[in-house]
Amino acid sequence: MTDSKNIQRTILPEPTLRRLPWYLAYVTLLDNLHVEHVSSTQISKELNVDASQIAKDLSFLNIKGKTRIGYDVHQLTKELVDFLGFKKKHNAVVIGAGSLGAALMNDKGLSQYGLNIVAGFDVNEEIIGTHVGDIPVYDIAELKERQKENHAQIAILTVPVNHSQSAANDVIEAGIKAIWNFTPFRIKAPADVVIANTSIYAHLALIYNRMAERK
Amino acid sequence: MTDSKNIQRTILPEPTLRRLPWYLAYVTLLDNLHVEHVSSTQISKELNVDASQIAKDLSFLNIKGKTRIGYDVHQLTKELVDFLGFKKKHNAVVIGAGSLGAALMNDKGLSQYGLNIVAGFDVNEEIIGTHVGDIPVYDIAELKERQKENHAQIAILTVPVNHSQSAANDVIEAGIKAIWNFTPFRIKAPADVVIANTSIYAHLALIYNRMAERK
Repeated sequence: MTDSKNIQRTILPEPTLRRLPWYLAYVTLLDNLHVEHVSSTQISKELNVDASQIAKDLSFLNIKGKTRIGYDVHQLTKELVDFLGFKKKHNAVVIGAGSLGAALMNDKGLSQYGLNIVAGFDVNEEIIGTHVGDIPVYDIAELKERQKENHAQIAILTVPVNHSQSAANDVIEAGIKAIWNFTPFRIKAPADVVIANTSIYAHLALIYNRMAERK
Repeated sequence: MTDSKNIQRTILPEPTLRRLPWYLAYVTLLDNLHVEHVSSTQISKELNVDASQIAKDLSFLNIKGKTRIGYDVHQLTKELVDFLGFKKKHNAVVIGAGSLGAALMNDKGLSQYGLNIVAGFDVNEEIIGTHVGDIPVYDIAELKERQKENHAQIAILTVPVNHSQSAANDVIEAGIKAIWNFTPFRIKAPADVVIANTSIYAHLALIYNRMAERK
């Protein structure tokens, strides 16, 4: 088991945090194929990341590779899942249960990564009181009150861009300390609030541009 | 109008491409509020990006700010939308019409950003032949054949991680030159194939870790 006290004290560089899930994806594959050991050189070849960088990244985990043998695949998979927090259940609410918000509420894959969406919130009277799958949609005005039962640690922000900041303010006011921001707006928040930006439309711009370049 | 020949010749740095949608989000807001002009200093304060960086990023566009007045908000909004390719229609297919894939097929927001999902493909006999919204789901074996009518420029990859590479191979074999990879797997492709990685689960790991740190 990973020592959770150690995790909390170590500030992990963001690039490491972005690479660890790649390693997890690859070693999960190997584990499913009953491969027993993997070296950082092998991972390096497969993922196009420098082998010494991989060794450094994995040094944050409580696992040691053996000379000439490498890492135990099954153990490495388990350690990565634990370390990345995918095995713990994190309650979340979706703010803005429109197209993208409802889509995420429908994505059963997220629960496999430790995300437990317990409710959606919206301003649209037509969807307030309905359900997306099994998940109820409430009036955004009830966010703070409902938080007593929701115990959400994370708010997923999928509102129209012109409501991004005010919705974020509501979230913070309700005492939720982490915002997964899917809007392209750079929201402002106190330093103790964690913000992760996933601007999927920005990635589209990247694809379009790179496509045009290669023509 | 932006000169599309210029766009194709200029290789934009990725960080610039990531910031441009932030500017767009902000100036769209201003435009809706009928604000007429905005300076890079103002954008800088709002988005926490260096003003000289903003001026540099915007220099890729066919727009000039005026001294002491700044940029025309409406024109800047239009130029950014054009430049980012959000106004052109790009046909796309979803490979893996499971939970995340179906979620994206249900997200009507994507079409506002120029993405036109025309079909989904899967291996699961239970969903082959069904529709997600109005979008048909076909057998993945028909990908190449269907491409004659689909004319997809982009394949959205939302398959389980152990099928990432083989699905990517099918996509490339079908002649599709851009892959929007939602799997955590680093797929390999020839140099003329554009790959954009949106690993939403990696962002979850980032949130969990940062939350643990601040406890």
